[in-house]
Amino acid sequence: MTEQATTTFADVTRVEEIAPGRFTAEAHPEWTIGGKPNGGYLLAILGAAASRSAAHQDVLAASAHYLRAPKPGPVEVAVEVLRAGRSASQARARLTQDDTPCVEAMFTLGALTADTEPYWSAGAPEPQGREYAGCVPVTGPAGGGTGPVIMDQIDLRIQPEDLAFGRGTPTGAGVLRGWLGLPGGADFDPLSLLYAVDAFPPATMDIVLTGWVPTLELTAYVRALPAPGPVRVLHKAQLIEGGRVDEACFVWDSRGRLVAQATQLAGIRLDPPA
Amino acid sequence: MTEQATTTFADVTRVEEIAPGRFTAEAHPEWTIGGKPNGGYLLAILGAAASRSAAHQDVLAASAHYLRAPKPGPVEVAVEVLRAGRSASQARARLTQDDTPCVEAMFTLGALTADTEPYWSAGAPEPQGREYAGCVPVTGPAGGGTGPVIMDQIDLRIQPEDLAFGRGTPTGAGVLRGWLGLPGGADFDPLSLLYAVDAFPPATMDIVLTGWVPTLELTAYVRALPAPGPVRVLHKAQLIEGGRVDEACFVWDSRGRLVAQATQLAGIRLDPPA
Repeated sequence: MTEQATTTFADVTRVEEIAPGRFTAEAHPEWTIGGKPNGGYLLAILGAAASRSAAHQDVLAASAHYLRAPKPGPVEVAVEVLRAGRSASQARARLTQDDTPCVEAMFTLGALTADTEPYWSAGAPEPQGREYAGCVPVTGPAGGGTGPVIMDQIDLRIQPEDLAFGRGTPTGAGVLRGWLGLPGGADFDPLSLLYAVDAFPPATMDIVLTGWVPTLELTAYVRALPAPGPVRVLHKAQLIEGGRVDEACFVWDSRGRLVAQATQLAGIRLDPPA
Repeated sequence: MTEQATTTFADVTRVEEIAPGRFTAEAHPEWTIGGKPNGGYLLAILGAAASRSAAHQDVLAASAHYLRAPKPGPVEVAVEVLRAGRSASQARARLTQDDTPCVEAMFTLGALTADTEPYWSAGAPEPQGREYAGCVPVTGPAGGGTGPVIMDQIDLRIQPEDLAFGRGTPTGAGVLRGWLGLPGGADFDPLSLLYAVDAFPPATMDIVLTGWVPTLELTAYVRALPAPGPVRVLHKAQLIEGGRVDEACFVWDSRGRLVAQATQLAGIRLDPPA
């Protein structure tokens, strides 16, 4: 994160209700990769609109299918609340630009509390990788780096062992481990965690260097309210086949508690084709 | 699977188009658990309608949010095709009963081919657990077992080590490994794989015995056309916290190839509450 980051995450995901269930928002040009808005960032905008419309505020589960990337600029979000239950609500949200659908998402919302404790945990990976101070900041052009412009908005750090792809020598493990901080050091909340699960570069970069790896589907679960401070991220590829790859992402807060997890299916163009 | 299974999976997921994008279907009483239709079974019905409506036939990614369980009996499915691209289509589908929304799902569809090979695989688990012959059939009342009626429709087998919960002594690992076959020994296809990822009992039964574990969200990726024969299944719990659990499911075909994978977030009521 550099001096370039003058706005907060809440600023760049702000939605304005112009009619019941209809919102305007702005896909900011600084939150793009190769000119295309980041998918998790768009999901946070959709989540902000769903959260405003539903009886429950905290996103528990979000699923998005990506139809086409909007250009940076104004977008609209339409929300339909499907059910308002006692402990959870469900809503559908569609992001359009010039009346063309770009992202279709669904949300299950509820109330997360800060004081829950894991009852049982064994199947998810343990927090791993170097501590924050041992990781290397990834920056965009404003920070003197080679990353996309979005990297100048955030504090994204990857442990040096997992950055070998930057020297043209991916390790082949398909794993990226590091940390993420928001503009201005703001604390995470359920909406910004929807961005966190898609903030890291494709884990496929640690396997094979390719062009854009466009997300087809992204599902995120928010498991707890995060403690203050940057979050620890593990982003890993699982299977590349038939021109598609699935990735899993795990996010822990500063207490080492799993606060969000996600899977995504993305397209990947290999040469020679897979 | 017993003599009770007189219909095929294609029969019980059949959809009939009564107007463009509007379908009728039947939630069969035999495909229920405690009187509620299985969530993966309902997703296969939704997928059948989406597949009929879209320009591409094979489900690549499916995401569903479960609002309320329909009763066994007639249901309606409404499909809206959101995009028809060159290599993929996206569609939204809603299952209603008596005009009340029960399941909202999205699909990305494309063309799967039988001859793809993994380009890279490391992050997903390897096929594990005993072979088909070493696993124990789980049956419902018609088969003389204690399982729900749906177990009399399918050939579901779990390795004996993972069935300790049936003797009141769950291992605490939260993992169920076994095999699944369809009625009449029919081969799997992308639609029946949507059922396969939700066919096993909750993996939480290997941790703590509870009541119903209702699915809130289920996301499935179909990675390849499966080879003939039963499929191998690994179903595992990851984190129980705040009255919710996430589970991951991996499905391999008889060649040992990963053909489907899924995550789900479900509610779980613990005593004492988590």
